[in-house]
Amino acid sequence: MRSVIPEIIPHFRYTAGLVRVVDLIRKKRDGAALDPSEIAFFVSGVTAGTIPDYQASALLMAIVLRGMSADETASLTNAMVRSGARVDLSDIPGAKVDKHSTGGVGDKTSLIVAPIVAACGVVVPMMSGRGLGHTGGTLDRLEAVPGFKVNLAVDQMKERLRADGCAMIGQTAQIAPADKRLYALRDVTGTVESVPLISASIMSKKIAEGIDALVLDVKTGSGAFMKSEAESRRLAESLVAIGLAAGVRTEAIITDMEAPLGCAVGNALEVIECLEVLKGRGPEDVITVSVELAARMLVLGGVASSRSDAARRVRRTIDSGEGLERFRRIVEGQGGDPRVVDDYGRLPSVEGRHVVAAPRAGYLTRLDAELVGRASVALGAGRDTIEDQVDPGVGIVVKAKPGAALNRADAVLELHYRDGSRLGRAVSLAAQAVVVGDAPEHPRPLLVGEIR
Amino acid sequence: MRSVIPEIIPHFRYTAGLVRVVDLIRKKRDGAALDPSEIAFFVSGVTAGTIPDYQASALLMAIVLRGMSADETASLTNAMVRSGARVDLSDIPGAKVDKHSTGGVGDKTSLIVAPIVAACGVVVPMMSGRGLGHTGGTLDRLEAVPGFKVNLAVDQMKERLRADGCAMIGQTAQIAPADKRLYALRDVTGTVESVPLISASIMSKKIAEGIDALVLDVKTGSGAFMKSEAESRRLAESLVAIGLAAGVRTEAIITDMEAPLGCAVGNALEVIECLEVLKGRGPEDVITVSVELAARMLVLGGVASSRSDAARRVRRTIDSGEGLERFRRIVEGQGGDPRVVDDYGRLPSVEGRHVVAAPRAGYLTRLDAELVGRASVALGAGRDTIEDQVDPGVGIVVKAKPGAALNRADAVLELHYRDGSRLGRAVSLAAQAVVVGDAPEHPRPLLVGEIR
Repeated sequence: MRSVIPEIIPHFRYTAGLVRVVDLIRKKRDGAALDPSEIAFFVSGVTAGTIPDYQASALLMAIVLRGMSADETASLTNAMVRSGARVDLSDIPGAKVDKHSTGGVGDKTSLIVAPIVAACGVVVPMMSGRGLGHTGGTLDRLEAVPGFKVNLAVDQMKERLRADGCAMIGQTAQIAPADKRLYALRDVTGTVESVPLISASIMSKKIAEGIDALVLDVKTGSGAFMKSEAESRRLAESLVAIGLAAGVRTEAIITDMEAPLGCAVGNALEVIECLEVLKGRGPEDVITVSVELAARMLVLGGVASSRSDAARRVRRTIDSGEGLERFRRIVEGQGGDPRVVDDYGRLPSVEGRHVVAAPRAGYLTRLDAELVGRASVALGAGRDTIEDQVDPGVGIVVKAKPGAALNRADAVLELHYRDGSRLGRAVSLAAQAVVVGDAPEHPRPLLVGEIR
Repeated sequence: MRSVIPEIIPHFRYTAGLVRVVDLIRKKRDGAALDPSEIAFFVSGVTAGTIPDYQASALLMAIVLRGMSADETASLTNAMVRSGARVDLSDIPGAKVDKHSTGGVGDKTSLIVAPIVAACGVVVPMMSGRGLGHTGGTLDRLEAVPGFKVNLAVDQMKERLRADGCAMIGQTAQIAPADKRLYALRDVTGTVESVPLISASIMSKKIAEGIDALVLDVKTGSGAFMKSEAESRRLAESLVAIGLAAGVRTEAIITDMEAPLGCAVGNALEVIECLEVLKGRGPEDVITVSVELAARMLVLGGVASSRSDAARRVRRTIDSGEGLERFRRIVEGQGGDPRVVDDYGRLPSVEGRHVVAAPRAGYLTRLDAELVGRASVALGAGRDTIEDQVDPGVGIVVKAKPGAALNRADAVLELHYRDGSRLGRAVSLAAQAVVVGDAPEHPRPLLVGEIR
């Protein structure tokens, strides 16, 4: 008998008792469900680097094409949580509630929701990601505020939670390290698009945060990861099931992402829009989604008895300026310049302006979120690869929202650019995003559905 | 624009014009057919090592689960042929015809067929493989002959073809190097079981040999790679289609591999059985398959006008001793000891004998080829990994063939062992291979089908 796992596997194997990666791959390839112990073996091997990438990617592709049951997905999430540390927030009083969005264009609600919910007495330990592809990221928006530090250690995060009821930070290396390795591999092996893999990736990080409850904003449409409502609903159901199985009170809303959310796309521009909402102004769609998310967080956090009560409380927190003041405190507590709240001139900006206008009179029937997002990335507001630097000052201002009546040459998008050499591609994408028709079309409601 | 292929791929990519592996993976993952240029890009990248294993294995798994069209399989084969050299045998007069078996237990016909066909005036440039798993390999059998060299360069092979009309060698490094890299990866990533991948692997090596025609022996049943007749037929059809598309006259027979072929399993034991057949003795099933294969090679080689004529000529070549004499010449020409032909004592052998007997009186209703093959590997006759050394002297002699009437304690299998410590596992497997029933069962015919 052999004492080591052979490099080359014969068709017949008699190393019974040894779990071997190739056996797991073949099992999943043939459509069977993996046991929790097999999934744990795989995740720990990936984390430790003892399973070669070429075996991991073969299993990932088999998972993409064969799927995973709810139990398997829960086991995968659990194993990924256990690949690192689970933050213990039990010594911080009160309910800890986070929100997470699956990503969209102009999807800036975290910067509005977190200070409001914290101001209402629910602790918000928010670990966010960076933008990738056409979608923006909370960390990039926060870093548009001069001095803002997102890389806090767990102790520093807990200090901020005690002081301000909120911390908005990046993922620490201790949280779900398996996810980092798996995601890097999925990205280059065509294995991103899988509801169980996406669900486990999102939920492992959220569960490891040590939260009591979670509200998910699953985007659907052109600018979202999931383009169809059915896919988005499957993802939302999977995410909620995993959260509940892990003892985290979880619910999800599905919101429209056919067009950008709000009127600002790009990091500093989006910070300004958030401040406007916290000042009681700002676009109606951003307010609607933000209030919906914050209200659900208050109910799950136990400080409101019904969603309608909670929504009223959220609006009062905006009207009273408490949300804005909490935002100022959070910025200051994390090293940022709080004066940006009153002086937008302290935020990065650029001089260049280019207007994409309506090609003819009519109605704006479509403002394609993915194309606007890609135009914004082309200007430098986002990144194609995780090594790219973002330019916090550039972006796109939406001058006309879908449904608007337009005269010929009315402004639809205003591109804020730094580097003229990047403008051509951005303009081309932005122009393609604009569709003018003869009659107004009625877009679907912003709130497409909910999963609780 | 980026000048290099980024390590991390965003969801949206604008490196139009560059073929990127991740795009091919996603295309196949989503069920589309790859273009010939995409397949060529993949194969050349695998051969050059510029495509990482983790991307190659993800694409291989997508191919296993999504399949490949006949056109894609032909493109893959063609690209694999072009990953190395295609041997030019045009300066050797006469038709060059090879045979290939998909592998079985006791499947020793190459050593019988090659000298007979060469003696009939058809040139046989035979590149073979080693045994892996429960199946044996022609090279291992040849090396049981003391001194026999299978590692000939192309020039030496051509010299042997001119002198003896036959060369029996291993695959040279110049032949389809992509296959070597892909097979090593498939073996450890659960991506072996795929008709298009198996077909391209087999046929790329055969086409690169520079042959005019090819007869395939696709095994079906317990001891074969393909267990069901339907799978075996699909593989046979795929192999023949590829050969014809590449301009090689190709046909296939499908033969039974539920039980071992012949009565000898193990390298030196099988050489003896081949010599017995060439001497006009030997088991009927080995003779039947050998005559069928050799006759088809003669027809494809243009030296016989019909298969019945060809079969008569094959039997005459055995009866006259010309086949045996040609075997002796081939052995001598490749450095082997020709005296083994007359003196089996010059072949490796072992002292140990253990008989697996009938547990009760009845009929031998099953002699499971895979289990006999595994028992033989357990004795040391085969290898679990390509690094294992084989013991040429050990093996199994079949004392009763399926259908035989048995008294209690009649010998069914005789194990020839060197190392007593390896005997226990071998006996256990061998005993499981033997099924005795109350009534004789009629096995299916040895020749299950043909594809031309």
